[in-house]
Amino acid sequence: MEKKVYLDYSATTPVKQEVFDAMLPYFMAEFGNPSSIYQIGIENKNAISEAREKVAKLIGAEDKEIFFTSGGTESDNWALCGAVRMLRKEGKNHIITTAIEHHAIHHTCEFLKEYEGCEYTYLPVDEKGRVNPEDLEAAITDKTAIVSIMLANNEIGTIQDIKALSDIAHAKGVLFHTDAVQAIGNVKIDVKAMGIDMLSMSAHKIYGPKGVGAFYLKKGIKLPNFIQGGGQEKGHRAGTENVAGIVGFGKAAELALENIDKHIAEVSSKRDYFEKSLLEKIPEIEVNGDTANRLPGNCNILFHYIEGEALLLFMDMKNIFVSTGSACSSSSGAASHVLRACGIPEELALSTIRFTVGDLTTREDLDYAIGEIVQIVEKLRAISPFNKNNKWQV
Amino acid sequence: MEKKVYLDYSATTPVKQEVFDAMLPYFMAEFGNPSSIYQIGIENKNAISEAREKVAKLIGAEDKEIFFTSGGTESDNWALCGAVRMLRKEGKNHIITTAIEHHAIHHTCEFLKEYEGCEYTYLPVDEKGRVNPEDLEAAITDKTAIVSIMLANNEIGTIQDIKALSDIAHAKGVLFHTDAVQAIGNVKIDVKAMGIDMLSMSAHKIYGPKGVGAFYLKKGIKLPNFIQGGGQEKGHRAGTENVAGIVGFGKAAELALENIDKHIAEVSSKRDYFEKSLLEKIPEIEVNGDTANRLPGNCNILFHYIEGEALLLFMDMKNIFVSTGSACSSSSGAASHVLRACGIPEELALSTIRFTVGDLTTREDLDYAIGEIVQIVEKLRAISPFNKNNKWQV
Repeated sequence: MEKKVYLDYSATTPVKQEVFDAMLPYFMAEFGNPSSIYQIGIENKNAISEAREKVAKLIGAEDKEIFFTSGGTESDNWALCGAVRMLRKEGKNHIITTAIEHHAIHHTCEFLKEYEGCEYTYLPVDEKGRVNPEDLEAAITDKTAIVSIMLANNEIGTIQDIKALSDIAHAKGVLFHTDAVQAIGNVKIDVKAMGIDMLSMSAHKIYGPKGVGAFYLKKGIKLPNFIQGGGQEKGHRAGTENVAGIVGFGKAAELALENIDKHIAEVSSKRDYFEKSLLEKIPEIEVNGDTANRLPGNCNILFHYIEGEALLLFMDMKNIFVSTGSACSSSSGAASHVLRACGIPEELALSTIRFTVGDLTTREDLDYAIGEIVQIVEKLRAISPFNKNNKWQV
Repeated sequence: MEKKVYLDYSATTPVKQEVFDAMLPYFMAEFGNPSSIYQIGIENKNAISEAREKVAKLIGAEDKEIFFTSGGTESDNWALCGAVRMLRKEGKNHIITTAIEHHAIHHTCEFLKEYEGCEYTYLPVDEKGRVNPEDLEAAITDKTAIVSIMLANNEIGTIQDIKALSDIAHAKGVLFHTDAVQAIGNVKIDVKAMGIDMLSMSAHKIYGPKGVGAFYLKKGIKLPNFIQGGGQEKGHRAGTENVAGIVGFGKAAELALENIDKHIAEVSSKRDYFEKSLLEKIPEIEVNGDTANRLPGNCNILFHYIEGEALLLFMDMKNIFVSTGSACSSSSGAASHVLRACGIPEELALSTIRFTVGDLTTREDLDYAIGEIVQIVEKLRAISPFNKNNKWQV
């Protein structure tokens, strides 16, 4: 079989066999509607309860604080829309977030500004992508409804000091949300210890299915619903439950928690091997992000004198699959707003590749990728008009 | 094996084997993110395009008019929220819908009233659940942004004359949406001929998976998005696509269209046999809804002197699975708002059962159910305090 090396685990992950096996009965044999009050409905309802317990456990929440959604994006929308809709009548219509959030946060801010008169502030980050708690403190006003700061960045992997940030928000009576889509399974999370009021998750980043996510909402917070309709999810998220997807998410969360130490150790060790090898073999490359505190699988590399997209396409021809940045904005052609916020100039931001290794990555995969990348970089640099050593340079 | 008879196809349907087979590769073998620009991303993107074509075909739409969502509920939310948010600046902040809509419509109206100052009107229906076009005409004002009338009712199956209703809306320059969750696959739909601007669909009602739906938006209408974030669905519905679910929906839509004549003929024939048998064998029962024009599988029956919920639970003990009304509000204990709107008094509305037959229902299933129901009704009536013939009655 042709060698294929997937190094884009932050974009999505394959469903693990055990996860798939758990989902399987709910497509056909146990296909009931969990809202139905007869046997097969109740069996489905119980399956959802078990999944809820597993997802809650992964982040140290109580079962009743977990609501299943269609994914991380919906959860992010719910957090911001819910907070300002709840607090607007108290004069709080301001959101604080960061310059390096996912579009699910930024575009929701823009939407709320355009349609609901909301204001928002994007906190800057330092060159490693870290938010300065003092900047947060200075940005909070008596109009601030919510602070939303992602737990770990999807492009450069930087992990924030969530406790320090949530403490500041709470000291001023402001709700704290975190987008933990990239973090769950990769960072140990305890919502209580970390002071998190709301948290967004997605199944497909932790070897679960696409199309299902969850929203953690600390008990006692009376947030308006985001999707209106039937009484599903104890009246908080309408729509017939995606039973198979939810059960799959539960199983994926269970596996993620069971294996978290092993996962972090192994994935970061593979990533370190890969990164060290590239740094040894290829001159004039740099690692972006906070190497002291980042997601275990993340390796964001700036290749001087090369366009990231060209590199990506040449790697694709060699069956190596990587991203230039977030999958969700991969075809935009624009420089990454995350890298720009870290102070990286536009032309260099366009020269980066996000590699992310995962549970199924092997040493052999990495050796193949390293060998090919060395050759591709050499080839591309030889023809690059930006390369000062280019023999064609005039 | 123990006999089990599922007569609740309007609540949900099992995934058909061919649908499941189509979905299967996208969980593991072909697990890429469709937004990625390398091979496996593009393969996923193509799979979504094919599914979109199939869903479009089912309702006579163009591919580019179809956007995948997490289900019918999200699509309904999108239609109403989108319309009033788009048109509010022109002074149009009024929704017209009917008294018999699904909660996904009613609760969205209530939400928009509470949080966005929206007004709404619920049109009455006659005893068969039909909307009178004259009522619609009279209700439209210069503030009306959208009319939303469900194509076929989920409880009593009544099919509306959509063309007559959309003509009235359009004559006054008002957008027309229909919730077609129960109708697709059961009623031939041509959005162009029927004058539909927006339409909501769900996969799990047509032997596809739960957790995926679609929204038809007529080209040229610039509706604001409902979920904000990444550039998926040509920038109209953010969030990593539920690829397996979407592919399954596509396959289910393809099968539904291929088999629609056969499906309608066979399912309505089974329903008629079942209904006729009950009417012959059980005294003092009545059929609700518009028997001349209803969904092929729908059979909503009022059993005098019996509580519907008791009947449901006794049937459950005999492995016969039915609803008292919509699955989405089945545990509320309240009388159906649909039956109440048809003029059925509360105590009688609580005496009804919705039976819905489907593709997998057999003659043997129906005979078993009929036999058991006859006995259960007799038993319950014998102890009913409402039964004038009850021997225990004082």
